[in-house]
Amino acid sequence: MFKSTLYKERRENLKKFFKHGVLLFLGNQDSPANYPSNCYKFRQDSSFLYFFGINEPCFAGLIDIDNDKEIIFGNDVDMDDIIWMGNQPTVVDRAALAGITETYPLEELSSYLHRVQQQSKVHYLPPYRTANCLMISEILHINAKEVIAKRSLELINAVVALRSTKGKEEIEELEKASYIGYKMHTAAMQFCKLGVKEQEIAGILDGIAASYGKMNSFETILSQNGETLHNHYHNQIITDGRLLLTDAGAENNMNYCSDHTRTIPTGGKFTQRQKEVYSIVLNCHDKAVELAKPNVTYLSVHLDICKQLVEGLKGLGLMKGDTEEAVAAGAHALFMPHGLGHMMGLDVHDMEDFGQIHVGYDQETRPSNLFGTSSLRMGRRLEEGFVVTDEPGCYFIPALIDKWRAEKMHTNFLCYDTIETYKDFGGIRLEDDLLITSNGARFIGEKHIPITIEEVENYMQDYK
Amino acid sequence: MFKSTLYKERRENLKKFFKHGVLLFLGNQDSPANYPSNCYKFRQDSSFLYFFGINEPCFAGLIDIDNDKEIIFGNDVDMDDIIWMGNQPTVVDRAALAGITETYPLEELSSYLHRVQQQSKVHYLPPYRTANCLMISEILHINAKEVIAKRSLELINAVVALRSTKGKEEIEELEKASYIGYKMHTAAMQFCKLGVKEQEIAGILDGIAASYGKMNSFETILSQNGETLHNHYHNQIITDGRLLLTDAGAENNMNYCSDHTRTIPTGGKFTQRQKEVYSIVLNCHDKAVELAKPNVTYLSVHLDICKQLVEGLKGLGLMKGDTEEAVAAGAHALFMPHGLGHMMGLDVHDMEDFGQIHVGYDQETRPSNLFGTSSLRMGRRLEEGFVVTDEPGCYFIPALIDKWRAEKMHTNFLCYDTIETYKDFGGIRLEDDLLITSNGARFIGEKHIPITIEEVENYMQDYK
Repeated sequence: MFKSTLYKERRENLKKFFKHGVLLFLGNQDSPANYPSNCYKFRQDSSFLYFFGINEPCFAGLIDIDNDKEIIFGNDVDMDDIIWMGNQPTVVDRAALAGITETYPLEELSSYLHRVQQQSKVHYLPPYRTANCLMISEILHINAKEVIAKRSLELINAVVALRSTKGKEEIEELEKASYIGYKMHTAAMQFCKLGVKEQEIAGILDGIAASYGKMNSFETILSQNGETLHNHYHNQIITDGRLLLTDAGAENNMNYCSDHTRTIPTGGKFTQRQKEVYSIVLNCHDKAVELAKPNVTYLSVHLDICKQLVEGLKGLGLMKGDTEEAVAAGAHALFMPHGLGHMMGLDVHDMEDFGQIHVGYDQETRPSNLFGTSSLRMGRRLEEGFVVTDEPGCYFIPALIDKWRAEKMHTNFLCYDTIETYKDFGGIRLEDDLLITSNGARFIGEKHIPITIEEVENYMQDYK
Repeated sequence: MFKSTLYKERRENLKKFFKHGVLLFLGNQDSPANYPSNCYKFRQDSSFLYFFGINEPCFAGLIDIDNDKEIIFGNDVDMDDIIWMGNQPTVVDRAALAGITETYPLEELSSYLHRVQQQSKVHYLPPYRTANCLMISEILHINAKEVIAKRSLELINAVVALRSTKGKEEIEELEKASYIGYKMHTAAMQFCKLGVKEQEIAGILDGIAASYGKMNSFETILSQNGETLHNHYHNQIITDGRLLLTDAGAENNMNYCSDHTRTIPTGGKFTQRQKEVYSIVLNCHDKAVELAKPNVTYLSVHLDICKQLVEGLKGLGLMKGDTEEAVAAGAHALFMPHGLGHMMGLDVHDMEDFGQIHVGYDQETRPSNLFGTSSLRMGRRLEEGFVVTDEPGCYFIPALIDKWRAEKMHTNFLCYDTIETYKDFGGIRLEDDLLITSNGARFIGEKHIPITIEEVENYMQDYK
């Protein structure tokens, strides 16, 4: 945990958004895998962690503005628990570490809320686990199907305002998470050998995340079919001449995240054709860190990167026509159907549980309906302290190429005959995490994961 | 998946238990960690896997006895899914692999059940995930709080009758899972070095489980505080002279489990005192495989092992008095407060979601209320093809020793003055998995994980 004064300060900052009301934060419970007591690794709710810091299941935090109270609800362990789990801090001890002195058993949350609900509005964030949805339904007497609709937009907006800007102590944690990411991605480069199963490499990455942090920040994507964007199958054997795309990250022991992607040649050397596409994606990746800075929208950075991509693809004879018009029409999205990046922090897609529109967009910058651009999770104006991913990609997705060609989509920008010859190419994505500074941006990660063609080939050569 | 004929055969065997009714099996959905789309590794429901084999989220299987139908409910993917997830088999293809030809979209499950519910009883197993509890509540119009109470005991008993006896093909999968367990436990022996953090070793084990199987079969216990039975904290640094207890297993790619425990000397050599207690536990471990055989209750094996433990502890001056009386009184449970073992198969505690009493006990063998023996998960008569764990232990739990001493518990059997001198000892557990054969039992695991004092010391010596 951070110091108790930090949690107090965060809650004080949150209270400034509210004149009245009660702010309810449910921590997570254990999540059963295949029977009640066989649970996945515990993952605390990020907003609960942010304001209360307690990283254990079955706690709730409450900020009662109207009665000027801050309360932790949770249960102490009994002798049976001590035998099975060892000595545990009391609820009072845990609350004290968060700077809170008032505590009650968890069962009293319902009656407390019942009392205050008469005169105060109870604000809560939208639950993403069914167990918490049902708990809110029960304690606030809301039909389970209406729980998400009745979440508090005021609370969402206030929490987004605070959590979007990362403090110095958070950036230190993000650096630690990135270091675990460095270990994971360099391990992928070391263990990528012909004849090895993708699953074996992916497992090694899981192990590194668990050895040095809490867990993976998301399920690893590690595939020679990099054109399949969210590919969690690791069934293939590494064969020569292909590209291995690895998108993976860790949560450090404080649950701050990293998220990096590298695409490496399975045999250790890029082919000429791979080098050409790789260089285009790398230029896009490098350009984003030049463009990103306070007061610039990330949507504009995204669109500039798309133009950079189109310029490159025109050079290879894969696209044609006016670059600006091609991007405005969305023709580039055949190759990059996703956005440039997303917010990152205590969640790898930070605060995505609130809904992307509340986190990545605002009154000024609205989401797009255009295929490709509509997948951009973060569009709004950047501010110092924001952390966003920079992850351009270029993919040759046979099913999408066939569909668009059959529908004669963007024939004035897309050179389908040449594109056909790349259907066996796969996909490339390169990703690092950007911290917006006072006058620009820098990549998080004191240890640089090899990314240039030369760096990757040299690194892999050392482990041949 | 196994061959479709096997799933058909299993369903035919299940149908023999029912003259009427509809048997509903809900597969699992993805389980969100910290926002809706960031999910834990998918874990299918074991009974759904056993009867239908489909290892993907959001399927349901239905056996309609009254209308002589077998149906899979699930949804096909659309073009968007193909872009993000790659080509996916259709529901029809997946159902065919389970030997089923009738399929409908998942949304139709509710209306199908609504139709048949008029004349047929719908049997379902007790859900352990809130999402499935809510789904049953909705589709069968049962109050969410009554869903578990209204589960079908007939279906539980029928499924227990089938799943308890492992087929040849299942034993092959359990052998594969045990081989992953071998890799995990020998890795713990290799990487247990002074100055290393427990978390680092535990992470390596997670990685091995993921590299060669689906995942851990349960969250690894790896601690120098082995006396804390379910200790998931891995915060300590390995220091000399202690014991490291590792209880860990994997699910192989077919979700069959392994579950082994080893306790090793942190510095590579056991002390004299450690050897003495270790030998007692190892004798208990070895005796169980001699005693276990068809038609013997596992409760009697448990009690015989407890007597063996008492004999050993008497030899060390930690217990005294008549051995039979000490075990009948439960005095030994100060040192071994848990049972000898549990069923294992597709779940590491096989079918524990049904309730331990339905799996480990029957009309003849009833659970005990005695501290220690009451924690025995499996008590009933063994049959050929059962797989149970054999996991005796001996722990010195300071909180429990203090409590019992203050309450003057079993002073005629416990030598508290000597016990006091062991309060810094920690705990030892040794565990392997027993397959009951036609006339006895054998350990699962073609690769033997070092277990004798000599084997462990020699193995660790090789990695110094």
